[in-house]
Amino acid sequence: MMRLSVSEYLFARPGRWVLAACLCLSMPVATAATDPLPSWTEGASKQAIVDFVGQVTSPDSADFIVPEERIAVFDNDGALWSEKPAYFQLLFAIDRIKQLAPQHPEWKTTQPFKAVLDNDMDALADSGEKGLLQLVMASHAGMTTTEFEQIVGDWLMTARHPRFKRPYTELVYQPMLELLHYLRANGFKTFIVSGGGIEFMRPWTQAVYGIPPEQVIGSSIKVKFELRDGEPVLVRLPEIDFIDDKAGKPVGIHKFIGRRPIAAFGNSDGDLQMLQWTAAGEGRRFMLLVHHTDAEREYAYDRTSHIGKLDKALDEADRRGWTVVDMKRDWKVIYPFESPDSE
Amino acid sequence: MMRLSVSEYLFARPGRWVLAACLCLSMPVATAATDPLPSWTEGASKQAIVDFVGQVTSPDSADFIVPEERIAVFDNDGALWSEKPAYFQLLFAIDRIKQLAPQHPEWKTTQPFKAVLDNDMDALADSGEKGLLQLVMASHAGMTTTEFEQIVGDWLMTARHPRFKRPYTELVYQPMLELLHYLRANGFKTFIVSGGGIEFMRPWTQAVYGIPPEQVIGSSIKVKFELRDGEPVLVRLPEIDFIDDKAGKPVGIHKFIGRRPIAAFGNSDGDLQMLQWTAAGEGRRFMLLVHHTDAEREYAYDRTSHIGKLDKALDEADRRGWTVVDMKRDWKVIYPFESPDSE
Repeated sequence: MMRLSVSEYLFARPGRWVLAACLCLSMPVATAATDPLPSWTEGASKQAIVDFVGQVTSPDSADFIVPEERIAVFDNDGALWSEKPAYFQLLFAIDRIKQLAPQHPEWKTTQPFKAVLDNDMDALADSGEKGLLQLVMASHAGMTTTEFEQIVGDWLMTARHPRFKRPYTELVYQPMLELLHYLRANGFKTFIVSGGGIEFMRPWTQAVYGIPPEQVIGSSIKVKFELRDGEPVLVRLPEIDFIDDKAGKPVGIHKFIGRRPIAAFGNSDGDLQMLQWTAAGEGRRFMLLVHHTDAEREYAYDRTSHIGKLDKALDEADRRGWTVVDMKRDWKVIYPFESPDSE
Repeated sequence: MMRLSVSEYLFARPGRWVLAACLCLSMPVATAATDPLPSWTEGASKQAIVDFVGQVTSPDSADFIVPEERIAVFDNDGALWSEKPAYFQLLFAIDRIKQLAPQHPEWKTTQPFKAVLDNDMDALADSGEKGLLQLVMASHAGMTTTEFEQIVGDWLMTARHPRFKRPYTELVYQPMLELLHYLRANGFKTFIVSGGGIEFMRPWTQAVYGIPPEQVIGSSIKVKFELRDGEPVLVRLPEIDFIDDKAGKPVGIHKFIGRRPIAAFGNSDGDLQMLQWTAAGEGRRFMLLVHHTDAEREYAYDRTSHIGKLDKALDEADRRGWTVVDMKRDWKVIYPFESPDSE
């Protein structure tokens, strides 16, 4: 097996990101004879995945599903990459606020900006949802879409995770990369359906997950078409367009994909309705939750966590027999860089 | 060449439409040695298409574009199928209002419903945009998404065009079907970007155009996720979500696709911003307008038409050298059923 680090796939050219190679190059090469999910421990979770894929792809099976209906949807934060100590997009917003602060002297004395500049996470938490929204608008709006793509790209090239000291795009789950690859190799079309910002994800999902921009669904702010000196631009406005979370996820799936997935992968109560919507379709379905149980290699949290709370969905998964991945038990490796043969 | 009628590809099963075969079966079979655009007259328009495709797909060309960036966007009404005597979706709304009238005795005396029930097109026009919106909401909202899909499917199976006495899905342009097929055979991903309703198109675009639901962008009303007796449904609400027309088209492209197309195909001023946005990208681009010049085989209209007005965009096409298809001159055949060997 050979893996290259994510940053080797990402390099900027003026105004946009270029994908040097598809993810398949960074994946363990699996032929029919080898294990397509080498980072998954043998057990019920892995078996459930393999059984499902086998059944829906075997033309002789009663559960066979034609390739064009093999739609699989994945949450991003906590399902494909980590979400602690806070959503990475919030950490991006904080860095961006600090970067813009010299142009906004008033932020030194105005919440929630003061809390960010003072690194006062308690005061930031006190500012609540309204405060967070102010941070998002101040950091995510007011520029063209092309400029924002560049800002996100630049940040990912330089920012490092506080605990792992790695680029955020390396804090993706190796077993889930293998799963994405395995599903696509079996004719599935893989989509991200995230509460995170759609334009925060699109610049890097092809290189990191092998998922092109048009298969990324997320929350969004409004944009406006303008001609500036005859040149058309799209300007990002400080106004919410769509929140792709909880009951918004089936709405987003319907809006962007227009057909019901046959498989859904999440990790929190924010994914419950997406899994319910997927489960309610006719024919064989597969629903999976990633349960964060490994404080040593990643993080352990569920029912009482502020971020990635997994409570109602965990009960419903138990009741309905959905697959619940125990990270500590089911995953041999969490991140690609843990593999002895990486880098 | 063998073509099958569209209705042979569409047949209903409870709650949804099944695609019996992909469009390629209905397309003229073109090998490398045969003409991929047999319904196009030899001339500047056809040559411009073939030159563009050749240049962006030849690895040796300075204009080479990698397959994943080969995004082509097509307007629907007037660009892929006809839009006269009125947008087909409006004719659907009118039929639906008539169908629902027995449950709404008040419509007999209330505009714009009275105009519809009286077949009084002048009174309907007088009701303006507000009246049209009322018709759309009364005919398109209040049911689940699954129910609406069935309603559209049922209508398409029975409704006939007033002039051509054919199902509306047969009033598609054979040369454009060939173009869609030709682009896909050259690694393009084809999208619809229409001012029409996204859920009005998605049930049939795969069978008719070979374009899957997730590659259809259009106007939409809001939908809401609900559990009804524990069963999740999406309910269509009488509220506009997004208008995918004029300056909304680049916004819709950015929202749904997340990257800029390299080719755009339209026919009216409603497509102007989509073509501008496409043209403004780096590298080789292709912009095309279908000019309706054939009153005998289809319809002739442009600068003064209420539906499909082509005025500013025609001037800009002339000024910037965009390809303008003269239907009468450039298309040997308009509709698939005109071919002597069809059916």
